[in-house]
Amino acid sequence: MKSSASAKIVVLSGGVGAAKLLNGLQKVVDPKDITAIVNVADDTQLHGLHISPDLDTIAYTLAGEIDPKKGWGLKNESWNAIEMISRYGGVDWFQLGDRDLGTHMYRTHRILQGNSLTAVTQEIATSLKVGIRILPVSDNPISTFVSTATLGEIEFQEYFVRHQHNVEIEDVSFKGIKEAEPGPNVIDEIMSASAIIIAPSNPIVSIGPILGVPGISEALQIQKASTVAVSGIINGKALKGPADRMLLELGHEVSPTGVARIYQNVASKFVLDNADAQYTTDIEKLGFTCLATDTVIPSQKKSARLCSTILSTFFPEVLKT
Amino acid sequence: MKSSASAKIVVLSGGVGAAKLLNGLQKVVDPKDITAIVNVADDTQLHGLHISPDLDTIAYTLAGEIDPKKGWGLKNESWNAIEMISRYGGVDWFQLGDRDLGTHMYRTHRILQGNSLTAVTQEIATSLKVGIRILPVSDNPISTFVSTATLGEIEFQEYFVRHQHNVEIEDVSFKGIKEAEPGPNVIDEIMSASAIIIAPSNPIVSIGPILGVPGISEALQIQKASTVAVSGIINGKALKGPADRMLLELGHEVSPTGVARIYQNVASKFVLDNADAQYTTDIEKLGFTCLATDTVIPSQKKSARLCSTILSTFFPEVLKT
Repeated sequence: MKSSASAKIVVLSGGVGAAKLLNGLQKVVDPKDITAIVNVADDTQLHGLHISPDLDTIAYTLAGEIDPKKGWGLKNESWNAIEMISRYGGVDWFQLGDRDLGTHMYRTHRILQGNSLTAVTQEIATSLKVGIRILPVSDNPISTFVSTATLGEIEFQEYFVRHQHNVEIEDVSFKGIKEAEPGPNVIDEIMSASAIIIAPSNPIVSIGPILGVPGISEALQIQKASTVAVSGIINGKALKGPADRMLLELGHEVSPTGVARIYQNVASKFVLDNADAQYTTDIEKLGFTCLATDTVIPSQKKSARLCSTILSTFFPEVLKT
Repeated sequence: MKSSASAKIVVLSGGVGAAKLLNGLQKVVDPKDITAIVNVADDTQLHGLHISPDLDTIAYTLAGEIDPKKGWGLKNESWNAIEMISRYGGVDWFQLGDRDLGTHMYRTHRILQGNSLTAVTQEIATSLKVGIRILPVSDNPISTFVSTATLGEIEFQEYFVRHQHNVEIEDVSFKGIKEAEPGPNVIDEIMSASAIIIAPSNPIVSIGPILGVPGISEALQIQKASTVAVSGIINGKALKGPADRMLLELGHEVSPTGVARIYQNVASKFVLDNADAQYTTDIEKLGFTCLATDTVIPSQKKSARLCSTILSTFFPEVLKT
């Protein structure tokens, strides 16, 4: 029987990788004790709609409605709106399924009515019967831009989707981040968490803008003893997305050590893949306690096993509540 | 063989009724000699999207892509986005098909980029291979509101769609109309037309706001000798929509005579249905030259026959070019 004063877990989350981790975590601990604090810096305004890729990937995954092949968008999706846009010669490189559009339309409508992104995210999660609490890191707009040698400064989705991150970058910036405030309850959730997991998301463009919202890093520094980071780099590669390439191009080491250095001030524990066990000593020298285990989580079962291993290693009291 | 200096025809247009008339007209005269000047006062902003019901009904109809059963929207449509909105408990009374959404998204995107509604309408018409020139009466926002005893003042689409025009009205107003300017070329098209047809659309909420844009009525008064109005009231009823009910509730006679009185200053010729031939004398007393004929146009063929009759009666020179 669970105790009434349950231990709370916070997960700092990007999109696909974080969604997979959370999907396993909710098998190991009660979803109502889990809060995902989610990146919003890749949110974009397109066709008049407010699109929040990371929030939606997490909600759809936890609802069991994600397209399992793509890892984003809804399963059983149709593409009639975007096909019509193609007929007009409109912007069709950002693929938006018809059911998915319903989410963006709902969110846009509610925000235009004066509701916060946090409130609307909660409404969407409730409708989709998601048990985990999903909190945007901020209700303020933050926009990721990447500087490229060939294309100049472009908006993140243009880099990520339109050019399929197949262009060399020189810098990344998050417009609006200095003026952004943490969303309601975000700091409270971090400060009252028994365990904080930094998901194996992109350290630069997914976790980076979470840490960059004023107040978040400061709270994590206080909670450093309770914070574990999971490497999204395995064997010199990102499991998904351009994290490896971005790290390299921005002068970081493309290894768990390179990732650990980025989280050095906010986390004290580090999880890397068995394939990278040789980096353990280096990462321990940075002050981390390390766990090398199987971090490849294609299935919910594998993710649950990883989460169980992380918690039993670093936060055994969380599993006991 | 057509002469090079062709006679131009302008049609003042609402939605469904005007679309049917235009669809027949383009069988009788070269579409490139026809300009539809279209109501935009029932345009609405919903889910962040700019929706132009009358412009789309006309473009879809002339493209042969209208849903023939509904008379609006696209044929072979899917409804996945709006079903998703229903799951969220969102605004789902304004039915938007998925392909139709592509149009609204494209239009919204292009307007947000700084293009005029006129320019975007032309792009859409070109993509759909519409031959007739479609001009929004104005590029400025005009919003129709109806005052009701039971619900207070409500936005037109709420009256028309949500309440299915099943509520008594006391007044109609067009916000923004006094500040609106005719769209580019609108006045030129009216002034250079050999024939102007006022479509059998709703005189209050479709043609009314066209006539209400400053400058339009003045131009039509100059062109009064070349302007013919077609009654949308047949046998005391509107063929479609709430025109009969609105006329009654706003104190007009629900007959071709009632309609003719509304157009008395801007038209000199009037077309009414054979079923209403008894009103001819009254309407002639208002100064009109009348034509009683079959005005029910469920098919393109019937519409073409009506257009041919109207032109051969009032503007035989147009057919000769």
